[in-house]
Amino acid sequence: MDSKRWDDLTSKNGMLGYLDMNLRGAGQVFFQNNPWTGLIILAAIFWGARAAGDLNVAFGAVVGLFVSTTTAILLNVDRASLRQGLFGLNGVLVGVAVPIFLHPHPMMWAYLLLGAAVSTVATLAVANVVKSWGIPGSTAPFVFTTWVLLLGAYSFTHLPIATMGPPALPAAAGAGGMTLSLHTVLSSLGKNISQVYLIENFWTGVLFIVAIAINSIRSAGFAVIGSVIGLGAALVFGAGAGATASGLYGFSAVLTAMAVGLAFEKLSLRAVLYAVLATVFTVVVQAAFNTALSPLGIPPLTFPYVLTMWLFLLPGIDLMPHPKASPVVSSH
Amino acid sequence: MDSKRWDDLTSKNGMLGYLDMNLRGAGQVFFQNNPWTGLIILAAIFWGARAAGDLNVAFGAVVGLFVSTTTAILLNVDRASLRQGLFGLNGVLVGVAVPIFLHPHPMMWAYLLLGAAVSTVATLAVANVVKSWGIPGSTAPFVFTTWVLLLGAYSFTHLPIATMGPPALPAAAGAGGMTLSLHTVLSSLGKNISQVYLIENFWTGVLFIVAIAINSIRSAGFAVIGSVIGLGAALVFGAGAGATASGLYGFSAVLTAMAVGLAFEKLSLRAVLYAVLATVFTVVVQAAFNTALSPLGIPPLTFPYVLTMWLFLLPGIDLMPHPKASPVVSSH
Amino acid sequence: MDSKRWDDLTSKNGMLGYLDMNLRGAGQVFFQNNPWTGLIILAAIFWGARAAGDLNVAFGAVVGLFVSTTTAILLNVDRASLRQGLFGLNGVLVGVAVPIFLHPHPMMWAYLLLGAAVSTVATLAVANVVKSWGIPGSTAPFVFTTWVLLLGAYSFTHLPIATMGPPALPAAAGAGGMTLSLHTVLSSLGKNISQVYLIENFWTGVLFIVAIAINSIRSAGFAVIGSVIGLGAALVFGAGAGATASGLYGFSAVLTAMAVGLAFEKLSLRAVLYAVLATVFTVVVQAAFNTALSPLGIPPLTFPYVLTMWLFLLPGIDLMPHPKASPVVSSH
Repeated sequence: MDSKRWDDLTSKNGMLGYLDMNLRGAGQVFFQNNPWTGLIILAAIFWGARAAGDLNVAFGAVVGLFVSTTTAILLNVDRASLRQGLFGLNGVLVGVAVPIFLHPHPMMWAYLLLGAAVSTVATLAVANVVKSWGIPGSTAPFVFTTWVLLLGAYSFTHLPIATMGPPALPAAAGAGGMTLSLHTVLSSLGKNISQVYLIENFWTGVLFIVAIAINSIRSAGFAVIGSVIGLGAALVFGAGAGATASGLYGFSAVLTAMAVGLAFEKLSLRAVLYAVLATVFTVVVQAAFNTALSPLGIPPLTFPYVLTMWLFLLPGIDLMPHPKASPVVSSH
Repeated sequence: MDSKRWDDLTSKNGMLGYLDMNLRGAGQVFFQNNPWTGLIILAAIFWGARAAGDLNVAFGAVVGLFVSTTTAILLNVDRASLRQGLFGLNGVLVGVAVPIFLHPHPMMWAYLLLGAAVSTVATLAVANVVKSWGIPGSTAPFVFTTWVLLLGAYSFTHLPIATMGPPALPAAAGAGGMTLSLHTVLSSLGKNISQVYLIENFWTGVLFIVAIAINSIRSAGFAVIGSVIGLGAALVFGAGAGATASGLYGFSAVLTAMAVGLAFEKLSLRAVLYAVLATVFTVVVQAAFNTALSPLGIPPLTFPYVLTMWLFLLPGIDLMPHPKASPVVSSH
Repeated sequence: MDSKRWDDLTSKNGMLGYLDMNLRGAGQVFFQNNPWTGLIILAAIFWGARAAGDLNVAFGAVVGLFVSTTTAILLNVDRASLRQGLFGLNGVLVGVAVPIFLHPHPMMWAYLLLGAAVSTVATLAVANVVKSWGIPGSTAPFVFTTWVLLLGAYSFTHLPIATMGPPALPAAAGAGGMTLSLHTVLSSLGKNISQVYLIENFWTGVLFIVAIAINSIRSAGFAVIGSVIGLGAALVFGAGAGATASGLYGFSAVLTAMAVGLAFEKLSLRAVLYAVLATVFTVVVQAAFNTALSPLGIPPLTFPYVLTMWLFLLPGIDLMPHPKASPVVSSH
């Protein structure tokens, strides 16, 4: 079905339009405004969750997506941003993160609903703050909301923690890098991409690339390049073997490469070097947040990407804003 | 005496005008621009301090109030903001906090004077930063100034710490919620309100409600509702028994309910749900800061309220700014 | 050679112009737009590094300076800011900090190059953020970049840590202030100034004062006054003996005294009191960051100065902006 006919259908049929904006939300995490991209991404999340034996993560993704988008509708937000899925992208990530880090408990689902609804308020709030600087809020609302939920869980008896922490003072890294083979390298490259959605699964990563590529080959290219640079930098600096192999040093680099790379209309040598510098530095920022959040026992989530993306887009020199990389979310 | 005659008196008599703006400052912590509200609040603080056997807290409140207001006069600040007490509200809180957390020592009083004076500079600084986003600085200057003073005290021999800390890594909450009875519930509801001024005393809380009600029944209503929602959320999520009973999970919720509730001109169902969402989320933010500040050994103060209030006022959707909830502080 | 002839020479000769903007960068750390000031400062850094037996620090300074300035040229930044050295001031500090805190290792030099290049991007980013508030970015880009590098090093095997940390929970200060004698006081006053460049050496401090004085006696005066007030406040509050003697409580105070003092066109009594308040409070902020960063095992660098300077310049009351104290960095 061509894009024009689908647009007609979704604008006429309310239910289909609602489904469409939700699916686009899942795609916007990778800067893709395309419902089919979102659909494949959700399928890849189900695949990864099933492989890990915890379907709650996939259900959480769907619930988070629908709750955050529905909250946006109730808040009468800007219609154009809503239809592009810009209010679902943070909710779907909250929905994935909560079941990963907290025990499945009825209260966890109430917490997830609360977090998904708040992620929409946070999306509006962050957009209002950053708009004067010409940078996108991106996944910052997801990060702030989820950090609050996870830190709060340490103080709440009814929200037991599953997989994060325990809080510990940082210690200098010991020796021992990742064992290098074609298998470990390929596996890590795929997981660098799947970990954008907090999932450690090579095939989920491959499906994500397919989902991006059906909308934009260029975007998929930047994602793969980001994964390669991220892995390379982690190996050169000597990041921890386990974390590198699991994709934990590369997922932020994937997003930075996409955001900064897509921000340029034309890729001059200077632009390429700028994007490479940003991507390499993302790995250092990732390492820095691994250290800094260790005493609190919470994960950096995508904040290393958000911070580096802001750092490299704020100067605005010769960076023609690319519409897909700079979603502007505004309220009426 | 009617309001008109009092205004005439205070504008003619310099000393009375000075007293008036100080008393209003004590009332502005609860968003009330009324000297009698401030007077009753100061009396309630004296009551609470005397009951706890530490009158330094009450003296600190008065000193902090006068020093911060006087600093504002010396800095030639905007006359209208000054007369509404908007420069005393942070100073009075600094004046309460320092004697609570640090040992009474001559150097503590010098520290308190320094902090109260700086709180006025911080009020101007924060107002300048947030003004472009249409949100009030509220008690953020108190929080930032006091955090600096308290963190600094750990490094200074002459400023021994009394009641906070010790710094500890966060640990997952153990079992055991608050024992529920009419007595414990009522006590906690009152302390949720008294803790806005860092005081744990049921009757101080009751007096605070009276002080608010003589100026605005609506405000007092929001304060009580905030206290009820705050306690409810703390019980549902399973917050620590001692902290819940002492009002430490509810005071920020009280302020959020007032700030967000008062921001709406008319209370539609949607507006009520929005304010309830904000108030419930404040309890999660409170829990998050309890965790996050544990390694530093300092209290969250009112920052959970400030952050949540900013989060929910920043979107600005259909929120007609209520003058009392949005004090605009500006310099000449 | 008079200033006019030098300007002619540097604008005609590209190589000389490049050298000139680099030297000015070294001077801008102390707000001096003068190549000879920068030259003497670099000489003083070599002196201090040689006395400490670690010339890497001095080489790092030069490399950081040239890399950050060159990055700025490649990014086509605003020509006027570039020629004033406003892109070298953060790079030279990154270049000093990395060899001080990390082990000299080939990877450390790669890290230093990366950090110096990023410091230029950070300078543009911070300038874009703070410009709407009328405050300078100053050394904030150095602080943010270096914090990321140092925190990251804890996670990287190939970047072993030399002198910072280990991370530890804060503990209340023990007894024992600095022994007071003419020798210890003078030594501390000089080191308060040398520590602006992270160097503990009395004569380096003296040379810095000379370097400042050849461009502006007034600036040198504020630096000395800042050092005296910083030491005084540290002694009064009872800061740790070792840190006070090493200049670690005074260097931020030196910079605050200069930045706030120079911001006033004329020094009224009120302006003097304001600058003194800022300088004294800087020592408290310094102590606060010593506490707050202890669990992360990284140093506060010049952030206590940056934060206090922002706090006291943001109000903007009667503070005529002094061009040298308010470098405006902007991109085309």
